[in-house]
Amino acid sequence: MTAKNAFYAQSGGVTSVINASACGVIETARAHPDKIANVYAGRNGIIGALTEDLIDTNLESAENIAALRYTPSGAFGSCRYKLKSLEANKREYDRLIEVFKAHNIGYFFYNGGGDSADTCYKVSQLSAALGYPVQAIHVPKTVDNDLPITDNCPGFGSVAKYIATSTLEAAFDVRSMSATSTKIFVIEVMGRHAGWIAAAGALVADQGMPVLTLFPEVEFDQERFLAAVKAKVEAHGFGIVCVSEGCHYPDGRFLAEQGTRDAFGHAQLGGAAPVVANMIKDAFGYKFHWAVADYLQRAARHLASKSDVEQAYALGQAGVELAIAGHNAIMPTVVRKSSSPYVWEIGHAPLSEVANVEKFMPADFITADGYGITDKCREYLYPLIQGEDYPPYENGLPRYVTLKNVPVPRKLGDFAL
Amino acid sequence: MTAKNAFYAQSGGVTSVINASACGVIETARAHPDKIANVYAGRNGIIGALTEDLIDTNLESAENIAALRYTPSGAFGSCRYKLKSLEANKREYDRLIEVFKAHNIGYFFYNGGGDSADTCYKVSQLSAALGYPVQAIHVPKTVDNDLPITDNCPGFGSVAKYIATSTLEAAFDVRSMSATSTKIFVIEVMGRHAGWIAAAGALVADQGMPVLTLFPEVEFDQERFLAAVKAKVEAHGFGIVCVSEGCHYPDGRFLAEQGTRDAFGHAQLGGAAPVVANMIKDAFGYKFHWAVADYLQRAARHLASKSDVEQAYALGQAGVELAIAGHNAIMPTVVRKSSSPYVWEIGHAPLSEVANVEKFMPADFITADGYGITDKCREYLYPLIQGEDYPPYENGLPRYVTLKNVPVPRKLGDFAL
Repeated sequence: MTAKNAFYAQSGGVTSVINASACGVIETARAHPDKIANVYAGRNGIIGALTEDLIDTNLESAENIAALRYTPSGAFGSCRYKLKSLEANKREYDRLIEVFKAHNIGYFFYNGGGDSADTCYKVSQLSAALGYPVQAIHVPKTVDNDLPITDNCPGFGSVAKYIATSTLEAAFDVRSMSATSTKIFVIEVMGRHAGWIAAAGALVADQGMPVLTLFPEVEFDQERFLAAVKAKVEAHGFGIVCVSEGCHYPDGRFLAEQGTRDAFGHAQLGGAAPVVANMIKDAFGYKFHWAVADYLQRAARHLASKSDVEQAYALGQAGVELAIAGHNAIMPTVVRKSSSPYVWEIGHAPLSEVANVEKFMPADFITADGYGITDKCREYLYPLIQGEDYPPYENGLPRYVTLKNVPVPRKLGDFAL
Repeated sequence: MTAKNAFYAQSGGVTSVINASACGVIETARAHPDKIANVYAGRNGIIGALTEDLIDTNLESAENIAALRYTPSGAFGSCRYKLKSLEANKREYDRLIEVFKAHNIGYFFYNGGGDSADTCYKVSQLSAALGYPVQAIHVPKTVDNDLPITDNCPGFGSVAKYIATSTLEAAFDVRSMSATSTKIFVIEVMGRHAGWIAAAGALVADQGMPVLTLFPEVEFDQERFLAAVKAKVEAHGFGIVCVSEGCHYPDGRFLAEQGTRDAFGHAQLGGAAPVVANMIKDAFGYKFHWAVADYLQRAARHLASKSDVEQAYALGQAGVELAIAGHNAIMPTVVRKSSSPYVWEIGHAPLSEVANVEKFMPADFITADGYGITDKCREYLYPLIQGEDYPPYENGLPRYVTLKNVPVPRKLGDFAL
């Protein structure tokens, strides 16, 4: 059997460790030249496949590929672009096969979250539906931590470490100022539907900090929340609120919505923090500060979790190993064997069970009042933020890599998206 | 001569390294028991002196005092409280002397920014004005970097490192997403009047990132700014804006003002980022994300600059050494001997030349278009962000110290602020 080429692409919102998965994919593929001739990366995700804009990763040095392990963002460009079903848009699938054939691509590695798992699953069906043999493997990634089956999703552990650390540092700050100045600090974190990232902010309660967390899973009750804030400030002299961007009223309205939607139809959120801060100020007059971490949180490779980086790499590596072993329509997963000490291994799940399933915070991870996390949640979270994995620095700043990203010569005509 | 006690207090907005200065003060004082019997810290800054709420630092272990070197925030509490002039409020000065006498305090170490230098200068005049011998030393601190004479101010280098790193990471992120999604990222940074922190964001231009910086020193011109944004996006596919909270229109109006003022009369700012982001969206329809770092930037001890930490400690140490040498009304300073390699030494300046003087960005640090920094500014900034000085971690989070803060038994009656 002659070696086939592999297609690899990054999809959806990038993270601080998605390139570590890319590194795992490419380094493992390079170790099996008898099975995988070359890895072609899609420029800007699946769009690179549709437009035949492929990047020749063979032209990148081993050193630069290794540097992906500590470089945040998507080195090949990502995209927000969801394939329709085969019935709804056969033209796109025909094009994919045309490109795969032209470039001898037999493996499809898609590195993304829930929507991407769906795309990957559709591609995995091409063999049967359109007669072209391609093995599709989904490499999980999402700061939202909302993929099912896997213990956690690469990207999440590092965001959790960043948010917990930042909330702790801000809490120390506010505590210093609260006698005569700021009494309330509100930090807004990502998480449209699932409160995993917000839960990380709640960890600072373990260091005596009076934190209230607002989860998307708990409907917002202004009166009850304000009473809880007042109780914290009266007991501690200050209060910290960690609010998820997805926090919403019982009727579904988000605390703040900018009114725009992304390509997947999700509302683009942001601005819950100032809403909450002003609400508290109006009620009690407390002086406040607020922060919106936004991209800073998911890009913060300088504070990555070591276990997250290791898992991101291992899942990329496992994706290639699963492909070589002949698997299709599959996602490598993290399987937790023990929380203390944290012991994990790589498993796998069929994409049919992954695609379009969202994993929310279990009810027993949230305290009865809805503003904190339970010991069960702590046991889950702490292992994921363990260890530091600092990037190298040069001139005072992290030395991240920008690849050459040389295109593979095209063989086909244009394709209109 | 019997040893006298020292009073030490933290004032104004805290930083990630002000406790490193506290560490320098206390460790150096402990090394000179013949001169300084004990360091009493003011609980919540100067308010602790006025209300006779003193903290006995002798009751803190050497290990915990050493841990202050890597703990952000103000370990003894800070305050925003400005003493009036002696003529306007003699009652407060009489009270200070009463407390100093009662606790045998002969040294006054005040750790703060411009307003605090003014307070410290007033206290230094007490010997002459009210006949009580006290030596007042100002230990500089301010993320705003706006104190005169000293090469830079402790706290600034670490914020600069954090903002430059965070802007770089976010720029990598946006670059990945820009083909089909976010094209504009706006990060708002601190700096009411001086654009030093915003200048740090401009450093990412050296890594090829299309960044526009909005300084308080440059009046905002919406039309010209939008044209510059468009040019960046058309050339690079995306754009980064680093906006100072103090950015304002020619008539003095801030881009965003929350309408409240702090005890020093400064407007409390925040929210310039969403204003700028929406302005760009309205003009060109570019999808955007924005972040407001707020306290996260000044509390980010996890990403402190090593040179900043070293200088913060050295200035605390020098403050005590100057006091022991008999100085009064003085501030230790950082003197730059060379930029490359960065060589500095400790000098000192009379408080009469420090109090109420603000150091803005020099005109030749800002590019002609007003949106970037010059090579001269780069030469100034890079040394200040050199080196990493990571805190220890435990359970995935930084292990910061919370002191016992045991009060010194009171000897006097109450005092109404």
